[in-house]
Amino acid sequence: MKNYFIAKSRRLRSTPYTSRIENQGVTAYTVYNHMLLPAAFGPLEETCDHLKKDVQVWDVAAERQVEIIGNDAAELVQLMTCRDLSKSKIGRCYYCPIIDQDGKMVNDPVVLKLAENRFWISIADSDVIFFAKGLAHGHNFDVKIFEPNVDIIAVQGPKSFDLMKKIFGKEILDLKFFGFDYYDFESTKHLIARSGWSKQGGFEIYVENTNSGVQLYDKLFEQGKDLNVKAGCPNLIERIESGLLSYGNDFDNNDNPFECGFDKYVNIESNVNFLGKEKLKEIKSQGIERKLMGVILDINSLSVTKSLDINSDKELVGELRSACFSPHFKKVIGIAMINEPFCKASQTISINIDNKKVEGKVCDLPFI
Amino acid sequence: MKNYFIAKSRRLRSTPYTSRIENQGVTAYTVYNHMLLPAAFGPLEETCDHLKKDVQVWDVAAERQVEIIGNDAAELVQLMTCRDLSKSKIGRCYYCPIIDQDGKMVNDPVVLKLAENRFWISIADSDVIFFAKGLAHGHNFDVKIFEPNVDIIAVQGPKSFDLMKKIFGKEILDLKFFGFDYYDFESTKHLIARSGWSKQGGFEIYVENTNSGVQLYDKLFEQGKDLNVKAGCPNLIERIESGLLSYGNDFDNNDNPFECGFDKYVNIESNVNFLGKEKLKEIKSQGIERKLMGVILDINSLSVTKSLDINSDKELVGELRSACFSPHFKKVIGIAMINEPFCKASQTISINIDNKKVEGKVCDLPFI
Repeated sequence: MKNYFIAKSRRLRSTPYTSRIENQGVTAYTVYNHMLLPAAFGPLEETCDHLKKDVQVWDVAAERQVEIIGNDAAELVQLMTCRDLSKSKIGRCYYCPIIDQDGKMVNDPVVLKLAENRFWISIADSDVIFFAKGLAHGHNFDVKIFEPNVDIIAVQGPKSFDLMKKIFGKEILDLKFFGFDYYDFESTKHLIARSGWSKQGGFEIYVENTNSGVQLYDKLFEQGKDLNVKAGCPNLIERIESGLLSYGNDFDNNDNPFECGFDKYVNIESNVNFLGKEKLKEIKSQGIERKLMGVILDINSLSVTKSLDINSDKELVGELRSACFSPHFKKVIGIAMINEPFCKASQTISINIDNKKVEGKVCDLPFI
Repeated sequence: MKNYFIAKSRRLRSTPYTSRIENQGVTAYTVYNHMLLPAAFGPLEETCDHLKKDVQVWDVAAERQVEIIGNDAAELVQLMTCRDLSKSKIGRCYYCPIIDQDGKMVNDPVVLKLAENRFWISIADSDVIFFAKGLAHGHNFDVKIFEPNVDIIAVQGPKSFDLMKKIFGKEILDLKFFGFDYYDFESTKHLIARSGWSKQGGFEIYVENTNSGVQLYDKLFEQGKDLNVKAGCPNLIERIESGLLSYGNDFDNNDNPFECGFDKYVNIESNVNFLGKEKLKEIKSQGIERKLMGVILDINSLSVTKSLDINSDKELVGELRSACFSPHFKKVIGIAMINEPFCKASQTISINIDNKKVEGKVCDLPFI
């Protein structure tokens, strides 16, 4: 497949770390929340391997924040998500499907509760800020909604714990998964969460002080030399193997949260009020007609740039939405929306690729 | 400056014409409304020159539509824009700044009035659909809001009239600027507007029937051979010379419509109800502190990928947001947010580029 350049402009916003990653060998970008997100530093298989063994520092400033603060902040945040946040705690992160009035997905952010009346919504690739502003105006909520100046650095991989300990001390190791707290770097406080878009362990540093952040970025490389630290980015292979779903790739505003397998975050039996609640009850009682599943294909490479039809004999059974070659499985693995009654592991399937029929089967998620 | 590849995926949606433009020599993409928008077919100067003389066919499917239909559709559309639409007519396009409750820009779409209770909002690069959905829920409006299956083909350039006449007959020439109507192509009706993102004249075909649309795409090239038709895309040089502003590049959600020079579309004296109206009255009475202006710089090339500080002597006077080399002016021209009291033509300025001081001056928009 031919490669194309990205035409840079102010509209595809740079990050405070862009000049650094361009010196560190970034080869491809994607665009995420109107911002440059590095997508490759050379071959994906090599960088996946490194991520699983060592430690990487990622420029994920494209994970933008929507700050909601004010007397009605908690009510507005709850209105947007089907996850019951009534018992949520300050200092914790919550994975929250955001749902519209039709019961469809708007985004799947991590919500950070900063105070009883102050939240950051750490968003996937859609403009949640305008959804929040629209709702706030219509409901006459007493809130302020804006994008704060936050540019996340992620530190991911099994050696991320050693690296972070060197810089922030051993207290950082007490941070529980999806917890966050504030830590000093050369007299500047940084919000750090134990989270990140890989299953290899790690942290996300929510940089508000840009000057301190770029110094910290450099420090991570200085201190990480003996840990074989490298610049990296969310890795397509690792995220598919781990079953980390991606808004816009695996699901979008045409899909409901049950179809995405987010059942445990859909609290329709709770007392809280959120958009699409009645619609989701209706969907739940009727049952879903399709679901995100894994697929394994008997080929050695595949680049998915749009949905590909999946067949069984001559019947259409779904569509493939993401895929990569997995060094672990030695086959192509992918994430697909599969129609009932084909949503079962070991269902055989085929895909027509370049006029050749490729065989495969359906499997459960996550792969590993 | 080094070039980087774009990492394609389903999230950066392809269009029905993507495979065609890749055979026709597209060299770079940008991402617009989560979709691939071609950004270059070789050198910008050559394609600008061609656009000004002949005719180009553009894949601008990334100009997505937000359809709003229902009893309260007109009320919701009016709520979103500061332009008074109370006298708007079916069959007309309206350039409409969309404003939030803080009086800031959300988007600057063209609104098509399809019926008294049915509109298409042809959006620039932000998710207006979620703003509309949020407002509709809060206000309990009786509307349906969705993204229809519309993939625009633009036909631009002075010979676009001849080309369109060949295919749709001479009736197409009666279409007035910013008017739209329905025209037959091989028994399929297409909505066609006299509009487009250049000042060289032309049409936009709002393709709903994809199969007919790709046939029409091919037909435009067949019939356009003797008119020297070429595949193209919005051209950075042509749009800056013409003073066509770009959301995300020249202004964004931090700017108000007066700062963008949209005064004639800000109808604060009207009787209609829209978001930010009181805030905009306040801004108007206080006067603005900065404004989008043109700048001309004494250099031969510049690629702007983020805001660049503009100085006068040692004072910061604004920031450059877009720029290109203009073959017409034989200098770099750009669009900049200039602070008062420096918003006047012939104000001298300087910009530090690669540690060299470049001289220039402020000028009025449009350049030509």
